[in-house]
Amino acid sequence: MNIADEVREQQQYGLTYAQAGVNIDAGEELVHRIKPVVRKTFNDRVLTDIGGFGGLFDGRFPEMKFPVLVSSTDGVGTKIKIAIEANRHDTVGQDLVNHCVNDILVCGARPLFFLDYFASGKLDVSVGEAVISGFVKACTENNCALIGGETAEMPGMYAGHDYDLAGTIVGVVDRDRMFRRENVSEGDMLIGLPSNGLHTNGYSLARKALFPRYPLSSTPHSLGGETIADALLKVHRSYLGAISHLLEHFNAKEDIHALSHITGGGIVGNTSRVLSERLSLSVNWTAWKRPPIFNLIQEAGMVPEEDMRRAFNLGIGLILIVPSSRANAIESALLGFGEAPVRIGNVVRG
Amino acid sequence: MNIADEVREQQQYGLTYAQAGVNIDAGEELVHRIKPVVRKTFNDRVLTDIGGFGGLFDGRFPEMKFPVLVSSTDGVGTKIKIAIEANRHDTVGQDLVNHCVNDILVCGARPLFFLDYFASGKLDVSVGEAVISGFVKACTENNCALIGGETAEMPGMYAGHDYDLAGTIVGVVDRDRMFRRENVSEGDMLIGLPSNGLHTNGYSLARKALFPRYPLSSTPHSLGGETIADALLKVHRSYLGAISHLLEHFNAKEDIHALSHITGGGIVGNTSRVLSERLSLSVNWTAWKRPPIFNLIQEAGMVPEEDMRRAFNLGIGLILIVPSSRANAIESALLGFGEAPVRIGNVVRG
Repeated sequence: MNIADEVREQQQYGLTYAQAGVNIDAGEELVHRIKPVVRKTFNDRVLTDIGGFGGLFDGRFPEMKFPVLVSSTDGVGTKIKIAIEANRHDTVGQDLVNHCVNDILVCGARPLFFLDYFASGKLDVSVGEAVISGFVKACTENNCALIGGETAEMPGMYAGHDYDLAGTIVGVVDRDRMFRRENVSEGDMLIGLPSNGLHTNGYSLARKALFPRYPLSSTPHSLGGETIADALLKVHRSYLGAISHLLEHFNAKEDIHALSHITGGGIVGNTSRVLSERLSLSVNWTAWKRPPIFNLIQEAGMVPEEDMRRAFNLGIGLILIVPSSRANAIESALLGFGEAPVRIGNVVRG
Repeated sequence: MNIADEVREQQQYGLTYAQAGVNIDAGEELVHRIKPVVRKTFNDRVLTDIGGFGGLFDGRFPEMKFPVLVSSTDGVGTKIKIAIEANRHDTVGQDLVNHCVNDILVCGARPLFFLDYFASGKLDVSVGEAVISGFVKACTENNCALIGGETAEMPGMYAGHDYDLAGTIVGVVDRDRMFRRENVSEGDMLIGLPSNGLHTNGYSLARKALFPRYPLSSTPHSLGGETIADALLKVHRSYLGAISHLLEHFNAKEDIHALSHITGGGIVGNTSRVLSERLSLSVNWTAWKRPPIFNLIQEAGMVPEEDMRRAFNLGIGLILIVPSSRANAIESALLGFGEAPVRIGNVVRG
């Protein structure tokens, strides 16, 4: 319809909100559908109900000497494009929650509550329901209340079936139990915990490298029967269980000096953030086997090794920096929890 | 470049992260530029520095009997399209912060900290800097620390210079001082505080109604010299100052029964959220003069009055529900603070 026609139609019939591309009824239908599901994430500290202006959470922490609120906001990057193209919408919400959980976990914090932002050009209630079911699943697994959210319908901003997500987590840690970068010392050991794939970083590079040759449904030999979509949509792991288990036996002062969540910037970019200026990392890049998807990306795109290391976690999702004297005991505890820790390097001078 | 050419180029030169459309250096440049500015929003309760994995905030509230954390996530809807088209990027961040401030204010909470999400197809450092300067300005005005954020570069998701924003606020209120919807009674007075325009709702309808005839730079007679862009980009007002002033003299139990922030859904849609099922609103729609932009939208798009009321705040940004016996005193206090309160209706049975 050209502009003259549009003006004429408006003058004849008038322009309603729905004609402008905003369907309040669809938004209400989505809230109606998700309400009972979201409520499952509530615990006795949630003082709110869905639909109020703000989410309410008990702010008393009598068991702590000095409660510190730890918060983080994130998105899932262009992993969302894979989900949209593969028409699988129930995993990206899990990616986002787990990513946020890990981001505050590296300060020592456990999750309290999460809020989501879900924006699309035209609200598809079923897609929204699937996305939010992913938030609910991961929130439940991480004992985190899904306390609020915003569903935005933005005609003209997101093309076709595109949508974007953002999420914010708030957690708490007693100040005495925070990991502190000043404890990291020369000689400390880097213990890596495996990722199961790209988690939520490097998707723009992965898509550009893979998609000229491998459609999402293809099953390259090296993936052992998995499709490209399966490999790329593996859910970002939460390390809350493993680290909580460790903290029952070890403490954040003598035993574990720091944690690093491997996101954009890779192993070195992220782990350097917890080092003082006079320290750096020595990583033994051959100490572990990379998940096959990384080799496939590198070969398909002829991606330089330096860019691989900067864009991807390369199979290591979380790094513990521990005094070398405690490394054996910590590895044993992690193995006992079903983790597969790997020594990937050391903290060195310089 | 077609796919065969792309594959050939990759095989010849290899694909770098920058070629995939992600510029980590631009992200780092943005962080470098905003760091000193963002730090200005910090107070002695902020225990963090920018660049860590999580934002840290003092979680002790010794002055409160039962601290309740109140949180909210939001976006600015398609107001962002106006900002992008007008190439003015320093106001939308203010819109978002103030919107979030009001959302928790209606529970009685004052802001503690804010986190932002800024996503674009290709990161423009100057635009990012302007957007974040808006967050900083409004955070400073509302005594709220800008404690974290995520800058996402998502090639293929956002077209051209498009970007999207989301924000999350966390505040606190003592449970005894929360507004409680159960106090709202038949006969209560609705006192409206003026908005200065659309705030952050109804932009899809406004654009569709106005833009066939009025470009952003046009100055329709009824706007008294303002351009359409000026009128549409007016910053969403924060009511924190006015309500904080009131709460020095009045309390959330006897004097003020509830507040309502007028966002998507309009006066009735939002204010009904604080009413019990046996109550409803009687609004005198002619009790106040609508800002001229609303009449312009209605005339240009021949928008039915019902849709106007559902999509827009129509000039009322916040509503106080007060016992009629307290209405005079509250209006006087608001007038004394420089506000322009208007009685817009009552709570009625049914």
